[in-house]
Amino acid sequence: MLAEPHFKRRPRVWKMLMAAMCVALLSGLQAQDLPRQVSIILLGATGDLARKYLWQGLFHLYLEEVGKGHHFRFHGTALTSTEQGQEVIAKVLESLSCPGDMASGHCAELKAQFQQLSEYRRLKTPEDYLALSKDIEAQVEHEGLRETGRIFYLSVPPFAYVDIARSINSSCRPGPGAWLRVVLEKPFGHDLHSAQQLATELGSFFQEEEMYRVDHYLGKQVVAQILPFRDQNRAALDGLWNRHHVERVEIVMKETLDAEGRTSFYEEYGVIRDVLQNHLTEVLTLVAMELPVNVSSPESVLQHKLQAFQALRSLQRHSAVLGQYQAYSGQVRRELQKPDSFHSLTPTFAGILVHIDNLRWEGVPFILMSGKALDERVSYVRILFKNQAFCVQSEKHWVAAQSRCLPRQIIFYIGHGELGSPAVLVSRNLFQPALPSASWKEVEGRPGLHLFGLPLSDYYAYSPVREQDAYSLLISHIFHCRKDSFVTTENLLASWVFWTPLLDSLAHEVPRFYPGEAENGQLLDFEFSGGHLSFSQPLLEQLVPGPDSAPLPSDFQVLRAKYRESPLISAWPEELIARLAGDIEAAAVRAVRRFGKFHLALSGGSSPVALFQQLATGHYSFPWAHTHLWLVDERCVPLWDPESNFQGLQTHLLQHVRVPHYNVHPMPVHWRQRLCAEEDQGAQAYAEEISALVTNGSSTWCCWAWELTGTRPPSSAVARRPGRRAAGSADHEPSSPRRMSLSLPLINRARKVAVLVMGRMKREIAMLVSVGHDPKWPISGVLRTLASSCGTWIMMRFWGDGTLALCSPLCFPSFALSLPSQSCPLPMRAFLSGI
Amino acid sequence: MLAEPHFKRRPRVWKMLMAAMCVALLSGLQAQDLPRQVSIILLGATGDLARKYLWQGLFHLYLEEVGKGHHFRFHGTALTSTEQGQEVIAKVLESLSCPGDMASGHCAELKAQFQQLSEYRRLKTPEDYLALSKDIEAQVEHEGLRETGRIFYLSVPPFAYVDIARSINSSCRPGPGAWLRVVLEKPFGHDLHSAQQLATELGSFFQEEEMYRVDHYLGKQVVAQILPFRDQNRAALDGLWNRHHVERVEIVMKETLDAEGRTSFYEEYGVIRDVLQNHLTEVLTLVAMELPVNVSSPESVLQHKLQAFQALRSLQRHSAVLGQYQAYSGQVRRELQKPDSFHSLTPTFAGILVHIDNLRWEGVPFILMSGKALDERVSYVRILFKNQAFCVQSEKHWVAAQSRCLPRQIIFYIGHGELGSPAVLVSRNLFQPALPSASWKEVEGRPGLHLFGLPLSDYYAYSPVREQDAYSLLISHIFHCRKDSFVTTENLLASWVFWTPLLDSLAHEVPRFYPGEAENGQLLDFEFSGGHLSFSQPLLEQLVPGPDSAPLPSDFQVLRAKYRESPLISAWPEELIARLAGDIEAAAVRAVRRFGKFHLALSGGSSPVALFQQLATGHYSFPWAHTHLWLVDERCVPLWDPESNFQGLQTHLLQHVRVPHYNVHPMPVHWRQRLCAEEDQGAQAYAEEISALVTNGSSTWCCWAWELTGTRPPSSAVARRPGRRAAGSADHEPSSPRRMSLSLPLINRARKVAVLVMGRMKREIAMLVSVGHDPKWPISGVLRTLASSCGTWIMMRFWGDGTLALCSPLCFPSFALSLPSQSCPLPMRAFLSGI
Repeated sequence: MLAEPHFKRRPRVWKMLMAAMCVALLSGLQAQDLPRQVSIILLGATGDLARKYLWQGLFHLYLEEVGKGHHFRFHGTALTSTEQGQEVIAKVLESLSCPGDMASGHCAELKAQFQQLSEYRRLKTPEDYLALSKDIEAQVEHEGLRETGRIFYLSVPPFAYVDIARSINSSCRPGPGAWLRVVLEKPFGHDLHSAQQLATELGSFFQEEEMYRVDHYLGKQVVAQILPFRDQNRAALDGLWNRHHVERVEIVMKETLDAEGRTSFYEEYGVIRDVLQNHLTEVLTLVAMELPVNVSSPESVLQHKLQAFQALRSLQRHSAVLGQYQAYSGQVRRELQKPDSFHSLTPTFAGILVHIDNLRWEGVPFILMSGKALDERVSYVRILFKNQAFCVQSEKHWVAAQSRCLPRQIIFYIGHGELGSPAVLVSRNLFQPALPSASWKEVEGRPGLHLFGLPLSDYYAYSPVREQDAYSLLISHIFHCRKDSFVTTENLLASWVFWTPLLDSLAHEVPRFYPGEAENGQLLDFEFSGGHLSFSQPLLEQLVPGPDSAPLPSDFQVLRAKYRESPLISAWPEELIARLAGDIEAAAVRAVRRFGKFHLALSGGSSPVALFQQLATGHYSFPWAHTHLWLVDERCVPLWDPESNFQGLQTHLLQHVRVPHYNVHPMPVHWRQRLCAEEDQGAQAYAEEISALVTNGSSTWCCWAWELTGTRPPSSAVARRPGRRAAGSADHEPSSPRRMSLSLPLINRARKVAVLVMGRMKREIAMLVSVGHDPKWPISGVLRTLASSCGTWIMMRFWGDGTLALCSPLCFPSFALSLPSQSCPLPMRAFLSGI
Repeated sequence: MLAEPHFKRRPRVWKMLMAAMCVALLSGLQAQDLPRQVSIILLGATGDLARKYLWQGLFHLYLEEVGKGHHFRFHGTALTSTEQGQEVIAKVLESLSCPGDMASGHCAELKAQFQQLSEYRRLKTPEDYLALSKDIEAQVEHEGLRETGRIFYLSVPPFAYVDIARSINSSCRPGPGAWLRVVLEKPFGHDLHSAQQLATELGSFFQEEEMYRVDHYLGKQVVAQILPFRDQNRAALDGLWNRHHVERVEIVMKETLDAEGRTSFYEEYGVIRDVLQNHLTEVLTLVAMELPVNVSSPESVLQHKLQAFQALRSLQRHSAVLGQYQAYSGQVRRELQKPDSFHSLTPTFAGILVHIDNLRWEGVPFILMSGKALDERVSYVRILFKNQAFCVQSEKHWVAAQSRCLPRQIIFYIGHGELGSPAVLVSRNLFQPALPSASWKEVEGRPGLHLFGLPLSDYYAYSPVREQDAYSLLISHIFHCRKDSFVTTENLLASWVFWTPLLDSLAHEVPRFYPGEAENGQLLDFEFSGGHLSFSQPLLEQLVPGPDSAPLPSDFQVLRAKYRESPLISAWPEELIARLAGDIEAAAVRAVRRFGKFHLALSGGSSPVALFQQLATGHYSFPWAHTHLWLVDERCVPLWDPESNFQGLQTHLLQHVRVPHYNVHPMPVHWRQRLCAEEDQGAQAYAEEISALVTNGSSTWCCWAWELTGTRPPSSAVARRPGRRAAGSADHEPSSPRRMSLSLPLINRARKVAVLVMGRMKREIAMLVSVGHDPKWPISGVLRTLASSCGTWIMMRFWGDGTLALCSPLCFPSFALSLPSQSCPLPMRAFLSGI
């Protein structure tokens, strides 16, 4: 009988097909009595990975399963000639080892059997695949067996996937009733687009349940233990595993090695694609996901994992810090024959701040960090708990194992480091964890060893009874249909959806250079505040100074000029937003002091988000309790529609500050369950509300109108009908959703108007300031009317990445700026030559 | 010329009268050229405080000011005979000391002068006061001086205040143009009521600006330095002094001494009144208040201090842990001649968790702690900053003075402890503070000394160049009119407003007993979670067990019964609220899972506040993003009116969770700036909104109706017009504000209804359950209709303090409870005898 107990526990949900495939083995069994064989084809059998891990993993599978009545055949294949390949494989097979506790005679016997069952063959043309299939069929029939399944393990470069997949699908599928499993090794694409493309192609040859994408981190014993640990310690963890108790989570993989010899791969990928997007993200989801009731159900696990992805807050450019060890560019130049002027921007170090927007994890920083050429090789997940205790006695008297004032943490020590072996550590002042005693044993004392601020003796520490290689574990899981140890297509794409925007926005970021290993000192330390990550140490010198007195970026931060009698301020984006937020706060404080209230009208769209965030996190003296919020314009969609301007205001501002409910005035675009119905007179009602609450002279009424030049058609601008009597108008245009907008005269009645211009195109900026009141540029109507009566700000940001624009005089309308000529504020030669 | 530079900087706001008093000195000066004298009368001049501190303080003032052309006369007074008094005073005057840096000859000279200017006289009857006044006038005239002011320092028990005040006011005020200052020593009342009473009485004799209430903590050099430190380090602190960076604030005063010999005072006051309500609260406000632009303006400081009080979140019973050293009750019995059976409940140890509800401090725990018989004598404020850094290198390489991963803190070391002297400590990895170098010097190294987890060398540490006694400083401040170093009436009452409810609710709390000093171990350690404070170690045994098998309170926590087929649950208040909140959450999760949304209708008033708080802080899996909130009833007042039910919902729930704006449905009682106008058809609109959003069967619609038996007239209950068609009705009744309410049929259409009954009167509870549908008891209408179709909860809480009720069978309607008879769940004999 087949002894696969978890099959019996499998629920009947999620992917019926997958279940069907896994159960086929079982149902086939009942139909026929012939002994069963599984054929395993290892492609790339002579390569590095295969020689180091995969043959050993296959042998391990054989040792585990052969006693249970399974028959196996192993076909190592590659593109090299039969002779050469056979030679390599013979050597590999000779070097296989048995577990330490197996008698050597028994080992030799099984090894000989395994060698007997293994062959090398060249696999190149579709005909080769067909021949392989025929040979297997013949062999099975000849031996009186029945083939129940076929595993193809593709240890080949990704560009070869599609051809191989096509050949397997067309010429090498096993017969009816037998299953197919195709194992794939990363990389699975380079970004969302390429990953999607590859997934689509593979999807045309294989069912989802036939594919096993390997992330070998999921085969690491400690990583594989995270969910079982959470499950077996539910009672202790239930109250602790949340934002009320967790201070931070660190997911770390540090390497001492650098990329030398691998730069042809590395230069294209970098540390985020190489480590964070896959390994660390997989670990993150295991820590963060809601724990399924049944953790041994692969379907539940995968489903909960996907939900965890959905709760991840989008990464911003400021969610990351990047580094590159100093020798890297030289290595790339040597290995890839680049000219001396070449400087790589590929990061070899990254720290990322991840936030999870659900009630369990909101506000808890998840720090992902990985790098090459660091001071030690170690990999771990550290869950640090909040210190919510006050210890009355002087600290001299604290007892480590008991005091709630000493650090309390759980560490999944994945490997290496000072401990030298995988382990699960739990602070003794936290709780005594349960681990399966058959496979986990207590770590022996190591006097003098400190881990994460505490001596080893302050932890309950467990390590595996028998250390097992990740690939052995995964090959066993492939055989046992444990899909939760692999990366499904949905999972893969969710991860790319999460990482790709960050990778795009960092594409031209200059990493911080670090000397490598212990010399790094504190150069790479980073910190987070208000959701932003930054290096702790400012750079003390310009790494590559420009011509003698080259100005620093800070010299350009605020340039004042006049536009029609109003101040015109241009600045680097962060500075600009900070100044605008400060100006709004000052106006609010003045208004509240004088009138008891402050009225603020805001536009929607994506540009104000940074301002909302700045106001939400940086201005705790803002008199929100006395502030009324109005909308300048709104789309005719329900307020909960993602397209609604109000929705942006709510997400980025309202949820973080305390504006009384009744001081928030969304536009009545959705009344009595109708959208901007003429008969509801929503615009009129809004006008009346404004008239009632905003009394002229008794309060300040500010409109902050946003114009996104170059990124949106002008039809989306404010105040499409400047002639309208008092307030809103609901326009219907074929090219954009209908909107309700404040009228121009109303905007111009405001005490203060700020116009934030953030865009990439100089043409629009030139237009903006050169035209008179052109209905195509409604913003000019605002400015014209205001210039003589109110203070007006124009804010400019020229490039999305905020760096390049200042270099070219073309970027600047001459009226606004007085730049030092013949100089460029860019701090890096490498950067220039990289463009 | 009078050299009081701060007079010139005084702004003209706040208290004109006070300003007038302080300026009188100056303006008088211009009118007359006679040399000026200040007369100082020290009442209780032979008492402990006077002998230990006050005479020395007066001498210190004399030394400081005499060189500047001031004349002084010092009158020590008491009730004792002239001869005895003179003898005591002579001795005290002989023992006075000069600062260490003064030449002994000069010292002797000045001391002789001071002795010359000081006299003792008995001051008992109103005539004595009159005589004193006449004598001063005669003396001044005789010496060709002009009296510019008179200071009365009352170092007497508080019961003597009023008589003395009356005498001063009627017989001993200085002449026109001269000021009067009356200095008062604590206690200033025992609770809000007594403090108000005392303040009113004193207010009938003195102007506010004439009174100087001493809290000697404000004269401690380090405490007095808090605001100047914040001011002088604005640049460094501006970004740090807020919830984004502060992890916690600890305000601590630990004593090794116990109360022996002082129990007659202590037994009435206890640690909260003795230390926390005054000293630690004053320090708290100095740390928490918004920093005035001008910290040397007493008016601004006092105003900002008051604002800090307003932001304090009300204390709950669970904001405190209490202890009592084991020997205390014995000491009380001995000193106060109590019987052996007497057990005191007076706390000698308290830990308090304070939260401040403003944008600067929201979520930051302020821990106040004080106790007697602890392991060390020390007093400090510790501001611990968040660790928001990730240090890439292994911790072995961390450099203490630089690493942002090691603790960062600012400590105002008020005194004693291992350091032994007052000091200001700032972690070197934080910033280098500025302190006035004339009065603060760097602390010398003390190898081996660790403070708050770090060696002393890891701090920038400054101590006063010259240690000065608190009373000397305060006496100087009285002379210089520095009102900000004293407790104004408003300030005092604000503090009592804050503390009195807690003191009331803890009045019958049994403190945890502790052995004292180092033996306390971890017995008193406490921790906070969800706004609650509790001891870290559960008590392992009942301290004073009742009769053999006496049940514990927990045995009574949940008693189930039926009421008309529905579950009837009665419990201790906290347990009741927790269960109800849990039930609501479970319903919400079910509804969202099934229908994608959850509708919850809530009543207003004060009773649901505890539920709101529980939901806001204890239920992070609550699906708020998919929850709609409705009102069951509402007063016809604007939503921002404190009487509005919506306002309570907003304050206690909405501000703490993330319910989307458009999911919150206040009743339209205030539409188009009119209140419940018939023509606005608000009730109808609400009904339509409900119909549109709450579709029968597709979502859960819950009404939680609240009935406050015994505390409100029945007219305030829900559903006054049960016959009304669909939804709301706006009633006008002469006896109560008009309301809009859900109709009874609508409530009864809900899937689940919970009725929370919290009241003190058994009569109403009996009524509630015994009547049929009596319009006088609208709640009975709810119950009747629901009983057969829905689950209904009735929750009961019998007493405001939640403790006493269970003892008396009279409290319980017989249907609801099955109490073990002949037993009382109170855990303490002392408690019983104390009532």
